[in-house]
Amino acid sequence: MVLVDARNPLNIGAAARAMSNFGFQRLRVVNPYEKAFREARSAVGAALVMEQAEEFATVAEAVADCSLVVGTTSVGPRDLQHSVQRLEAGAAVIRGHLASGPCALLFGSEKFGLSNQDMSHCHWLLHIPTRQEHLSMNLGQAVAVCLYELIRDPSALLEPEKGSPSSSAEIERVIDALLEALRASGYPKLNTSESFHSALRRFVRRLHLHSGDAEFLLGMLRQMVWKMKHRDKSKG
Amino acid sequence: MVLVDARNPLNIGAAARAMSNFGFQRLRVVNPYEKAFREARSAVGAALVMEQAEEFATVAEAVADCSLVVGTTSVGPRDLQHSVQRLEAGAAVIRGHLASGPCALLFGSEKFGLSNQDMSHCHWLLHIPTRQEHLSMNLGQAVAVCLYELIRDPSALLEPEKGSPSSSAEIERVIDALLEALRASGYPKLNTSESFHSALRRFVRRLHLHSGDAEFLLGMLRQMVWKMKHRDKSKG
Repeated sequence: MVLVDARNPLNIGAAARAMSNFGFQRLRVVNPYEKAFREARSAVGAALVMEQAEEFATVAEAVADCSLVVGTTSVGPRDLQHSVQRLEAGAAVIRGHLASGPCALLFGSEKFGLSNQDMSHCHWLLHIPTRQEHLSMNLGQAVAVCLYELIRDPSALLEPEKGSPSSSAEIERVIDALLEALRASGYPKLNTSESFHSALRRFVRRLHLHSGDAEFLLGMLRQMVWKMKHRDKSKG
Repeated sequence: MVLVDARNPLNIGAAARAMSNFGFQRLRVVNPYEKAFREARSAVGAALVMEQAEEFATVAEAVADCSLVVGTTSVGPRDLQHSVQRLEAGAAVIRGHLASGPCALLFGSEKFGLSNQDMSHCHWLLHIPTRQEHLSMNLGQAVAVCLYELIRDPSALLEPEKGSPSSSAEIERVIDALLEALRASGYPKLNTSESFHSALRRFVRRLHLHSGDAEFLLGMLRQMVWKMKHRDKSKG
């Protein structure tokens, strides 16, 4: 990760924080505007990255030991001479390269991005697919998005919801308790049609109750039934 | 996009900028610490999002019209009661839902994240796969990463490199020019082995020259040949 001509040390700190979040260690800073950039308070939890950050006077020196050099660009009006890859596709190439050798990912200054001279050190350019009407991202956010794409796991699966689904027996108990509660409440439709029972059964099934939730609901219904019957007795 | 209890207006502005970058319009802010948050200078290029941002006193009101409510969490020490999905998988569910109804994506305060009460309004939680040793992200960066994943195009293809590859005829011309230059320079290995020609030919092929580059290289070689022959003549 190479930040070129960064003006705002808060952005350097934010980049360091994102690096630490996503497990990247080596930060290089070329010609930073603020020489005391290491003190940026935005590097929350990234003290190590900031401490070990290396400072260089030129891009050439900063990327000297890297066998792949990739610049980032918002692909603005400039007619770029370089190949430009969308982040989704370009990150896959970088991941592949990292297995065999070090790669430098360059970010330019907040205001101007990478200069043509900076880009001349790059094999190709990466761009984050922002809207054509608002291409330019905040530097710290652009760094975070690129690093996220690099560590992204396309095979991550949807976690099953917490708790195990209720058994049919549990669901029947809920239906019975609900029927009893409706009966106790004098719910009018209860005896009017046989189809009401089916509708009620479908309704409870649609709730996709978990075991714990079924118990929770049963407890509430039983308390209501008790209260309704109790009140009836006190009246009668 | 719902920001709950955000303390720093610069983070609200950064979130608005990322929304504008990735094409999201509706920002809702619950109980912001800074009432004049709309003036945040960090909302570069996102004036419209900030202008149209809605302010609410409670999470319940902010998500009232949303049929899916997803909270974000760094999944810290708290033993969460909710289902938690990794961003890669959870974003796919959100994208699917957005086709049928509005979804709220909640971010908590910079320091404490979402409270248990805030989370009770959520169907499930989303977490960005940061390192276990450094889970907590900057708010603006977390927003940018989540929105990027939502607009990410998994079918984005690698762009072919600029320029068309050289034809074999062009490559032969380069090889011939290189041989002539080596001959003119008195390069010692030139006549020692037939295998040198093959090695040279393989070398030039490995360069994967594009048409323009082949012409560029030919021009340089021809000039060198001219200079070497010219010098020879001036000597002789």
